[in-house]
Parts: sequence; C-alpha cells; structure tokens
Amino acid sequence: MVGVGLIGTGFMGKCHAIAWTSVGAVFGDTPRVRLVHLGEATEDLAERCAREFGFAKASGDWRAVIEDPEVDIVSVTTPNQFHPEMAIAALEAGKHVWCEKPMAPTFAEAQAMRDAASRSGKLAVLGFNYIQSPAFRHIRTLLDERIIGEVNHLRIEMDEDFMADPEALFFWKHEAASGYGALDDFAVHPLSLISKLFGRVSRVMCDMAKPYADRQVAGGGRRAVETWDIASVLMRLENGIAGTLQVNRSAWGRKGRIALQIFGSKGTIVFDQERFNEFQLYVTSDRPTEQGFRTILVGPHHEPYGRFIPAPGHGLGFNDHKIIECHEIIARLEGRPAHLVDFDEGLEIERSVHAMARSHQEQRWVDVR
Amino acid sequence: MVGVGLIGTGFMGKCHAIAWTSVGAVFGDTPRVRLVHLGEATEDLAERCAREFGFAKASGDWRAVIEDPEVDIVSVTTPNQFHPEMAIAALEAGKHVWCEKPMAPTFAEAQAMRDAASRSGKLAVLGFNYIQSPAFRHIRTLLDERIIGEVNHLRIEMDEDFMADPEALFFWKHEAASGYGALDDFAVHPLSLISKLFGRVSRVMCDMAKPYADRQVAGGGRRAVETWDIASVLMRLENGIAGTLQVNRSAWGRKGRIALQIFGSKGTIVFDQERFNEFQLYVTSDRPTEQGFRTILVGPHHEPYGRFIPAPGHGLGFNDHKIIECHEIIARLEGRPAHLVDFDEGLEIERSVHAMARSHQEQRWVDVR
Amino acid sequence: MVGVGLIGTGFMGKCHAIAWTSVGAVFGDTPRVRLVHLGEATEDLAERCAREFGFAKASGDWRAVIEDPEVDIVSVTTPNQFHPEMAIAALEAGKHVWCEKPMAPTFAEAQAMRDAASRSGKLAVLGFNYIQSPAFRHIRTLLDERIIGEVNHLRIEMDEDFMADPEALFFWKHEAASGYGALDDFAVHPLSLISKLFGRVSRVMCDMAKPYADRQVAGGGRRAVETWDIASVLMRLENGIAGTLQVNRSAWGRKGRIALQIFGSKGTIVFDQERFNEFQLYVTSDRPTEQGFRTILVGPHHEPYGRFIPAPGHGLGFNDHKIIECHEIIARLEGRPAHLVDFDEGLEIERSVHAMARSHQEQRWVDVR
Amino acid sequence: MVGVGLIGTGFMGKCHAIAWTSVGAVFGDTPRVRLVHLGEATEDLAERCAREFGFAKASGDWRAVIEDPEVDIVSVTTPNQFHPEMAIAALEAGKHVWCEKPMAPTFAEAQAMRDAASRSGKLAVLGFNYIQSPAFRHIRTLLDERIIGEVNHLRIEMDEDFMADPEALFFWKHEAASGYGALDDFAVHPLSLISKLFGRVSRVMCDMAKPYADRQVAGGGRRAVETWDIASVLMRLENGIAGTLQVNRSAWGRKGRIALQIFGSKGTIVFDQERFNEFQLYVTSDRPTEQGFRTILVGPHHEPYGRFIPAPGHGLGFNDHKIIECHEIIARLEGRPAHLVDFDEGLEIERSVHAMARSHQEQRWVDVR
Repeated sequence: MVGVGLIGTGFMGKCHAIAWTSVGAVFGDTPRVRLVHLGEATEDLAERCAREFGFAKASGDWRAVIEDPEVDIVSVTTPNQFHPEMAIAALEAGKHVWCEKPMAPTFAEAQAMRDAASRSGKLAVLGFNYIQSPAFRHIRTLLDERIIGEVNHLRIEMDEDFMADPEALFFWKHEAASGYGALDDFAVHPLSLISKLFGRVSRVMCDMAKPYADRQVAGGGRRAVETWDIASVLMRLENGIAGTLQVNRSAWGRKGRIALQIFGSKGTIVFDQERFNEFQLYVTSDRPTEQGFRTILVGPHHEPYGRFIPAPGHGLGFNDHKIIECHEIIARLEGRPAHLVDFDEGLEIERSVHAMARSHQEQRWVDVR
Repeated sequence: MVGVGLIGTGFMGKCHAIAWTSVGAVFGDTPRVRLVHLGEATEDLAERCAREFGFAKASGDWRAVIEDPEVDIVSVTTPNQFHPEMAIAALEAGKHVWCEKPMAPTFAEAQAMRDAASRSGKLAVLGFNYIQSPAFRHIRTLLDERIIGEVNHLRIEMDEDFMADPEALFFWKHEAASGYGALDDFAVHPLSLISKLFGRVSRVMCDMAKPYADRQVAGGGRRAVETWDIASVLMRLENGIAGTLQVNRSAWGRKGRIALQIFGSKGTIVFDQERFNEFQLYVTSDRPTEQGFRTILVGPHHEPYGRFIPAPGHGLGFNDHKIIECHEIIARLEGRPAHLVDFDEGLEIERSVHAMARSHQEQRWVDVR
Repeated sequence: MVGVGLIGTGFMGKCHAIAWTSVGAVFGDTPRVRLVHLGEATEDLAERCAREFGFAKASGDWRAVIEDPEVDIVSVTTPNQFHPEMAIAALEAGKHVWCEKPMAPTFAEAQAMRDAASRSGKLAVLGFNYIQSPAFRHIRTLLDERIIGEVNHLRIEMDEDFMADPEALFFWKHEAASGYGALDDFAVHPLSLISKLFGRVSRVMCDMAKPYADRQVAGGGRRAVETWDIASVLMRLENGIAGTLQVNRSAWGRKGRIALQIFGSKGTIVFDQERFNEFQLYVTSDRPTEQGFRTILVGPHHEPYGRFIPAPGHGLGFNDHKIIECHEIIARLEGRPAHLVDFDEGLEIERSVHAMARSHQEQRWVDVR
Repeated sequence: MVGVGLIGTGFMGKCHAIAWTSVGAVFGDTPRVRLVHLGEATEDLAERCAREFGFAKASGDWRAVIEDPEVDIVSVTTPNQFHPEMAIAALEAGKHVWCEKPMAPTFAEAQAMRDAASRSGKLAVLGFNYIQSPAFRHIRTLLDERIIGEVNHLRIEMDEDFMADPEALFFWKHEAASGYGALDDFAVHPLSLISKLFGRVSRVMCDMAKPYADRQVAGGGRRAVETWDIASVLMRLENGIAGTLQVNRSAWGRKGRIALQIFGSKGTIVFDQERFNEFQLYVTSDRPTEQGFRTILVGPHHEPYGRFIPAPGHGLGFNDHKIIECHEIIARLEGRPAHLVDFDEGLEIERSVHAMARSHQEQRWVDVR
C-alpha cells in the first residue's frame, strides 16, 4: 500500500493524479495506491480537485500534505520556484518525493535539493517524461546493443511555438528574474535524453538569441524582452562525442518537437517526439540496394507498451509517459532497479544548463563542472 | 454517483477499467464513479483483476454483476459470442449497457440486442473508439462547415498484419463458424466512421480473398482456411457518394492503419489512424502557389484534447479514446447529447457488413436493407 | 546512327525531343542520334519547334516526316485520336514507331495498330514512362527475388486534380465522344505497372462516378457532364491475385499520385509516384523489434540511376523517365532485350480498360478477353 | 549562337553537357548552342566523350579549348585544384567561364579567380545547383513577400554518408592537403542558399569532429585521419539573424540531405533537398484550428518548373538544376538579370568557410572579413 500526497493541480498535477490512479490497472503488479491528501493554494480549489482526482483529504496548506502520516510519497507539481522549499521539507519530513522538472530556478537551490535528498535516504525523483516512452527506451537498448555501432555524433532540437507570437503581451517569462529563457524551459528535456543515452556533457559553447527585442505591455507602451527564446549549443560529451543542442520556444508550427539524430559507425537513429510512437533506424547491415530509414511503430515488443495495449501501432499518449514513470517509482520503492532521473542526475543536468548560460554570457567554451 | 459493473478483463476490459478510473481526473465535471463489481470466467481471475483495477466486488459468474443493485451500468467486454446474452440480460435487469463491438456473430442476434435496448429504455452503447479521437471529431466538424465543399468521393482502408504470417497455425478465426473474416474483425470500424460522417450505406459490391488457402494444424497436417482475410468493397452511400472500403488483416507492416481519403469540391481530407494525432487538409482557398496538404497536429483547439493536455502536439493515446467515450456515456446518462454509436446505429453498421458478405457470395451488387 | 522523326510538340513531344537529345550524353553507349524531321500542324510551328529542339527539317504535314528516307523511327506524340492513322502509316512506311499512350480512342483502332505492327516487323512501342523509374524497376526485381514472398494482394490508385474545379467550364473531355473519362486518361498507367509486375488482368468489376453532374458552358447555361472522373475497380489477375484499381481526376491535392501497395507473404512494398525517387519496403526478415517500412532513396544501386548521377539520393526527374525509355528503344533497335510496352502488351492493357467500362455499364463482373 | 567549350567529363562535366544540349528544347527561347570543343586529360578520353556528348572537337590539352576562337564560354568541371589555373586562363583568353564549385583549395586562389574575373569583364559564374530548384526559388520569393513575417532564426544541415564507412580505406580526402573536410565539400552549398536568401555571414563559431581517428591504409597498417567529416557552426548573419549550420559527410542514411528550417514572426518554412520537389510552409494566417505545415509539391506555378513539365507534381531531377542554371547563364550573356552565384558572391562564401575553419582552430568566435 502506497499513500500518495499531491501538491499542485495544474498540467502536471493532473498528470500525476491520472498516473497514480491508472498505474494499477495498467501494470497489474503494483501495490495498492491510496490517494491520501491533496494540497493546493486555497481550501476551495484543493477540495474541488480532490473530488475530481479522487483524493481522500484536501488542504489549502501544502504543509498539511507533507506532514500527513498516511502519506508515503509526495508529488510536487507546483511552479518551479516552490520546488526547493516543498521538496526539501517533504524529504525532511521523511517522505519520498516525486518532483516535476526543472529542479529549481537557481543552481544553488538545486544543490540544496540534492543535498536534502542525500541526507534523507528517501527516494527523490524528477519528472522527466520523455525518457519513458517505449520508443526512447528501445533506442537506448539498441544503442547498448551497438546496433548502429559506435555513436560519433549527436544532434538534438527541442522546439515549440508558445512564445512565437510577436503580438503577445510582455509577461513574467520575459523578465530576467524568470531565468534565461528557452534554456530553462526546454534544455533540461533534451539533456535528460542525453544523460540516459550517453552520460554527462563536458564542455559547451552556447549562443542565445531573441526573436523579438521588445513586446507590448498590457497597460500600454513596450518593454524590452530580457530572456532568450532561442539557444544554440555546440557541445562535447564526457565520452568524447561532439554534438549540438538547439532549443527554440518561438518556432512557429513546432508543437512538441524533440528531434534527435544519432549517428554511428554502422547506422543512424532518428526520433521526433511529435510522433513518439515511432522512430527511425538506418542500419548498414541491410543489403545496400534496400538500405533505408525504417519507420518502426512501437508495439508490445517495446517495453512497456504491451502493458497498455496488446496490439502494435495503436499508440500511447503523452499522459501514458507519466504512468510509466509512476510504475518505475513504485519499482524503486520496492527496491527494484528503475529507469528514472533522481536528484543526483538532475543536478548534473542543471549544471549543464547553467554552463550554457555562462558560455553565452562570456562568448566562449565553458567546462561543465 | 455511477455504479459500474465490468464483465471481461481482456484488452477491452482493461481499457474500460482505465476509462472509468480516469474519466473524473481528466474531465473534472463528472459524477463520482464507483467501481462496484467485476465479473470474469473464474472467481480467482475475477478477484485478481478486481484488485488490480480497483473494483470492490468480484464474481466468477457474470450474472452476479448484472444483478448487483449497486451497479448502474455494465461494461460488456467479453468475446463477441457472449455479447447478445449478456447485453440483453443486463438491459432486462434494468442496467445501462456499454458493449464492445462488434455487436454479435449473427445479424439476428444483433437485432435481438437492438430490440432489447428499445424495450428497456436504457442506454445501450457500442464501443467504437475511433470515432472519439480529436482529429476525427474535428474532421466531422470541418465537413459540417463544408471546408472542402461538397464531398463527392470517399476511400477508406483498414489494415493490420496479425494474420499475415503464413506459418502461423490454423485456429478458430480460420473456421467459417467465426464469421466471414476481416469483414467481421475490421469492417465495422470504418463503417462507424462513415456512419458518423456521412450516414448510411445503400449498396455494396464486395470481393473477398484468402491470402493463404490452407494452414498447418497444430497436431500435424494442413487444413483449408474458411475465412477471408481480405475484403474489397465498392459502395454507394444513401447520400449518393460513391466510395470504396478495403480491409486486410494479413497486410504485413500495417499495425493499426485506418486510412481515410475524403474528396470534396473544394479540398481533400486525409487521415490515418496509425498517426491519429494528426490529419491532413488540402483546401483550394489557399493561394494556388502555396496549396498543399497541411499536416495538422491536434491540440487544445480540437475537443476534447485540452481536457487531457493543455499543450498542443503532445499526443493522446489509444486508451484515451475510451476515456472520451466514457465521458460521452456519462453525458448521455445525465441527459446531455453525446457522440456515440448506440445499438440502433450499430445495427445499421452490422447490416452493411452482412450485405457485403452476401454480395461476395452472390458476386453482385446488393442493397443494404 | 539513328534518324529520328517527331510528330507533335506538346508535353510529350518536348519530352521525346529532350530524350533523343540527351540519351547519348546520359548513357554514353548509344549510336549517334540525328534529329532529322519534325512535323507539326503548321509550317510555322514546325519550324519554330525544329529550331528549339534542334531538328534539321520541319514540315506542316506529318506525312513528310514518315516518308523521309533519313528517318528510321518516328515519335508520335499528337492527341490520341491521331495515333492510329499516324502510327499505322509510319509502320507501313517501314519506320519504327514510338507512340505515346493511350493507343487509340477505340479498341478496334488499337487492334488495327497492333495488327499493323505485327505485319510490319518493325519496332512498335508505347510511351509508358512510369515503368522506367529506377524505383519501379527495382521493385520488379525485388518481386522476382520474392523478397516479400508470394504476392497475395494489390492496391493501386492514380489521382490528379486537373478536373477537380467545379467552376471550370465544360470542355471536350466532358463529352462522351472523348471516351469514358478517368478510365482512359489514367487507368492505362496503373495497368502498365500491373502488366510489368504481374501480367494480365482476368476479371474486373467497375464502378464509375461523376463528382459534378453538370458544368457551366462557355457561352452561358449548363450542360450535363457525360464522362466519369472517378472509377473504382475490383479485379482478379490471371495469376489469381485479387486487387483493386482506383482512378480519380478530380482529387484535389493529388498532382501525380500513383500509389501502389503490394502485399506478400513475407512483406509489403509501397510506392507513390509523387515521390518516385523513393519506395518503401517492409520485410519480415528484419528482427521483429525493428520491423518497419524502410524508405529507400534510389541511387546508383538502382539501374539506371547511376547513368544520370553517380551520387545517391539526388533524384531523377519526370523527363528522365523518357530518356530511359529512349535508351531501351535503342537497345531493342540493336537487338538487345528491353523493358518496354509494345503494341501487343499495350493492346492487352486497352482490353482491360474497355472491360472495366463494360462492367460499369452492365453493373457486373466482366471477363477481360 | 553560343559556342561552348567543356573541360572535364566527370559527374559535373556530364551534367554540363546535358544542360547545354537540352536547354534549348526545355526553354525554347535560347540562342542556338554549339558544342564546340571538349577537353580531357587524354586525347582518347576526350574523343570518346566528345562523341557521347556531341561535341565537334576534342583535345587532350585543355588549353586548346580555351584558345579555340569558336568557343565563347568554357565550362570548367575538373577537380578543384585545377579551377584557378583554368578559370583564370579562360578569362584571360576572353572567354566567359562557368566553373564548378568550390572555387579553389585556398582562399588566395579564390581571390585570384575573382580578381581575374573583375579584370576580364567577362561572365564568371560558379555552379551552385541547389539555388536553382523551383522550390528554393519560390521560397526566396515567399521570404521577399514576408509570408512568414520577419525571419528571426535559421538552421541548415547538409549530410551525406559517402565517408561513413569506418572500414573504407584512407585516401586523399583524409589528408590535410585536401582541405578541412566536410567544410570544403559541403559548407559552400548551404552557404550559397544563405547568401541568396539572407546575404552575408558576419560571425562564426565552429566545432569540427572526426568520427574515425584513423583508417586502414591500402598497403597495410593504419593512418591518422587529418580532415574533419563533421562541422557544426553557430553563426550570425549581417542582417542580425542568429543561425546554425551543420555538415556531416559520415552521416549514415543521408544521401543528399540539405535541410533548411527558417523561422519567422508569422510562420516557418522547411525544406529538404532529398525531396526537393516539395517544401513545407506553416503560416499563422491559417485558422488556428487548421494551422499545420503544408507540403507543397512544385508545379508550373513555381518558375521555371513549367518549362520542363506542364503538369504539377511530376518532379524535376537533379540534372534539371543544371539546365536551369545554364538558362540563367544564357540570360546573363544576353544582358538580362539572372539568378546566379558569380565569382564575387562565391568569394564571400569561401570567406565564410575559411573563417569557420579558423574559428575551430582558435576555439573562438571569428568575424568573417
């Protein structure tokens, strides 16, 4: 029996709630999950969401959730700036923590979270959905099998268009206080994929750009944009691979693109999150006259797709990533190995992000350390 | 408060269970759902599944489910041959019924189900997932808006490869007793889409084929295959549109293809279920130099995608269709209009299937009546 | 040395001219080609085109071309109704003939052409470009190698949108005198592919449709359309394969689509003429976890791509088909085997077309004989 | 009347020959082209090629070609190291020059070529095929029309796999004497596109990589590879746009990829040379519910496609680029404006390449000047 606390009920809060609710039916091998306590900013909102999501208790104070003795694990899905305080408090209260990414606004706070996790001995996991898709997990297996030989080059792009409209008003994400820009919003995602496939980044050279220098202010007038919607990065991984990472949150037409190109001595793997139920593989072991990129639809052969659907090619959804992640968390709670990004690995990802920002500022290659 | 009974725990049983569990968290506007009673072939299996799926009671006898006074609606997800008996009994016991497709092995049985539904005054709905995807629902809206003008031609294909291996053993689906073949397994799906977009089929001309004349029998020797893996149909709809429908369950490489091409006087719509989070639209209102098929990724603009995910292009999964269907059922239970295939509409779909089979047998055009 | 006569200078006339001009440079193994005599409807047009295309002589009378003793082979590229007279006259004048498709408006005329060819002992070839692409030729080789095992099903579609505009005026192609409609314009193309891959068609069941019942007349008023823009055909080939053939010349957005799906016991081949520099192959010999449709870009491995371009993936153009066809003609002139549709094979294709039309008229299966 | 001399008969030599031969038939508005004189390394080869390509004279000494008084323009298609000497000599002999890219192995030589061109007053053009495709030319028009608003970001990749095999032997392209590597082989192509769309590059930051540190030598043993198959570049254009350029000649599965992503304030344009008969356009002027990338097939609307084929979607080939380029050259010879890269513009492209190499060497941002 696992007692669950949830703080936050936005996009990710709902996603966690569905994951906790469905994980048993999907996987069938889990302990009983009890939705114990939901925390939100106000009592009213907490109660409405608790009813919708099926939680037994509701509080307008998140501390009530982490102090609830029936709660074993706390899902932290609030805005980033609240992550450090809540995650650390939960860990110190002896709870396991499943916190959404990114860790924290500053590297120092992320470090404090990692330290709290180390001290606590509790499970401290970050919500990196994209590492959980059957296609990505299978790509990882294929790389381990060296199906494309030795990897020698890597390109990764993450693009969306939610900031692309030049007529949209100036808001908090345009203020320097919110961070660097696309680097914070996006870069952790491709970095989580890189971390799982290849390990750490060693050096970065970053260039950031602003598509729109200023924006209209709600009350009238215009204000200079202080964050960067575009970041382009040259990088070297610790294993020696040269690669590039590019992010753009003003890329019209891109909705959830995370495009991966992995080049090896015997083939190439291509993946795009916008069609995450498939991936592409080119191998030189095919006869030369019939070599081509195979578009492989995921199916029961690709774990854990079959737990959701016994027929291939029917497709998982974005929310299913979180159910898989939830199942991995349960596995680790039960002492089994699991495919997750914990606070240690997450801190390394944050370290790369901050090195990128420094590189842009100093206009030079920066070591990630 | 809705009390749910579930009979059957295979592919669709699990899918119903997840739908009933998640519909509240996803949509947030539903009555409380109670998972009351689960029925399976044996007590043991019923109990294990009840635990996994979160049902309160379990029985080895399905009649216990339909007789349970706490049950308001029964999900029937057993093999087809059991549908008539179970659905009719449930309706007669005063329960609403949500029964998986196809209705029944014979047309007479399907008719009996429809009649029982009429007599009961209860909700009697068939599980046609594919009509629920945001892309399909949006296509329907676009056709209503006449974005491609007057539709004049239609092509639809449904293909999978689960019967494609010639080395696979003879099994019950190769026996004539199981039905016609691909026509039963698949044709109802494209017909459900046609029904929702264009209404009834009036005439059909069908040709069926067997990729493999005989198959190995488990014990040794070979046996003639009695069912048809391929069916190709010329058809006329009641609204005058000429179209074709093709199904193939031995189509290597096709995993869940339902490919739709809708031609109109001002454009064309193309859709493929294997990539059901997108559809293609060509319109003549675009400037001639820039006319092309647009690949449109579904997002919050396309109902009810936004209930699942606030960001576009992140993708729903196959199981999410069932959650949407479940939400439609709840809407109808509450007296609101809903997008569903009820037993009346389902019977018309079955009528078309049987007319196709007769057409093949008699090698001539057959009226659907 | 080959002396060339050309009658007609439209789309295909120009295409033949380019082919005759370039074949030597591309293939490098051909006899010297001399552009001897060009015939057009008027002296002026003939002279202008002769200058542009590089022909030595020009005539306003096509008979001058076929009677020119320096001419060895005549390219006939005039509108269809002139094919019989010109081709027969050229053959009777002892010239080889390379005539554009379709053969002739009526089956009787096509037969007369075939008979004239038989009597003459001369080369009599029809211009079926699409059989010449490296992708198609390679598909043929793969089928011979049984890379997808035994073929058991076939689907082919040919669609364009040049008749799709309902506001376009009534013109001669809408008159019954012009033929059946899409069947004449298009069906011979897919049938040429079928002929090369699988041989003859034995039975057909055809349904034709008119997207627009009537059209505006130039002078005012409306007139009933007498031809059919859409034809859908069920068919059986002599080798027993069941298939479908669909053509639509009012299919908005389709520009030069010829979509082929070939299903076999060990795989599937998919091809679309709109992207004729690639084809797709699915084979069950790939490991199950990595089975998928390979998109194979043609290159020097695929004959005769390498004669045009030594680097793969750079792409041939539509006009290059004709250069390849020209090279095949030269091969046959020199007594070597060649990949062409001669008047005998062409007549069988016409036979299928007329059987389809009769089937539609009589609303029943018709034998092709 | 234009008298043509050709030096070199490899890939590009043949391509020039076909262009000169076909340009009249394709465009119909050109002066008569005379294939006067072909030069190759040996008399024999020159004679064989002259016969195949249709040239009147042949020489084993290229100087005979440039000195031939009947020659007006010389196509220089020999290996790069010969370009400077031949092009300069031809210009000094009063001939127009059409020289294949890249200009020359060293920047100093390229400068000398440009200076010779300036002094001569003759036409001096570089063969940059990819700027000639109807899709690319139309993209240029669309950008001028600001269909995607103000461009704010650019990504361009060029990849092939001809060096990808780690088992291939060490050859001259692995020696430092051959240049930098992929930067020389490929970068000029994307830079030619950038030059035509956006103008000059102002600053670059480049990182180069070697997929394989050493390679087998023919005689036995291994030798260190001295050139770089991969180059990744951050760049700033003079107009302020930030972009990236990536090239890789060891990218398995890529055959002729030149992938362009152009992001603007009102939309996005995507293009891939491997499918150069289409491009993709996303515009925010489409209704939000139907915004998507349009795949636009080129046709007669897109100049000069219609000169080749009157029907849309039938596809040009790689060699057709050269015919278009040839037509542009004739236009400029006749004093009309033309879409070409002359030696001035070509030198700026070379300048960018050398700046990239220096940036890699010095590990810092370098100004292109």
